[in-house]
Amino acid sequence: MVASDEVAVSFLDTRPVFKGHVLVVPRTHVETLTDLADVGPFFQRVQAMARAVEQGLQAGGTFVAMNNRISQSVAHLHVHVVPRNKKDGLRGFFWPRTKYDSAEEAQSYTDLISKAL
Amino acid sequence: MVASDEVAVSFLDTRPVFKGHVLVVPRTHVETLTDLADVGPFFQRVQAMARAVEQGLQAGGTFVAMNNRISQSVAHLHVHVVPRNKKDGLRGFFWPRTKYDSAEEAQSYTDLISKAL
Repeated sequence: MVASDEVAVSFLDTRPVFKGHVLVVPRTHVETLTDLADVGPFFQRVQAMARAVEQGLQAGGTFVAMNNRISQSVAHLHVHVVPRNKKDGLRGFFWPRTKYDSAEEAQSYTDLISKAL
Repeated sequence: MVASDEVAVSFLDTRPVFKGHVLVVPRTHVETLTDLADVGPFFQRVQAMARAVEQGLQAGGTFVAMNNRISQSVAHLHVHVVPRNKKDGLRGFFWPRTKYDSAEEAQSYTDLISKAL
């Protein structure tokens, strides 16, 4: 157990991307980010954990991420805090990328999302 | 522009992982999550955006992530909200994984991080 209080429980992922990879889990049972009633206190814990992973492991940075439903291994919100360093070999999630066929197509996505807000 | 208020500005990533990939950016200039003074209001915007991306695009889920320093393309905090669907072909960030050599090694990481909290 890395940390535990009334808001969140944090522990090492047993199959880490890099050693020191922590999961931060809200005590309230919610399936995804969308279902979390009070995001502030929970993300304060995530923020503190990102800082502690960096400082405690002398990491160059962190990757902080959550899967909502798709690729989510357990149906309870959990935020990954992964230590990162230069040239750690991670190609990262953000590859490959695509592009919009036209400005109109991009606008249509903007419209669909902004109308749903 | 997908959304804009006093806390955050959100817009389409021009090189999306999947079309509809949004960046949510705090108006306050901070470099990483660790530097953000008031995480609650900002993550409320991130949460609302995850919901809107799912609903607006009829996506099966979302991937919500941020790079802190390493792999961070711009030195200003930005959270990626990426629409996800079953069999969308994404291998994901969380592969490959490693493992701890022993329970003692895992405990040493737990200790380093928890002491830095």
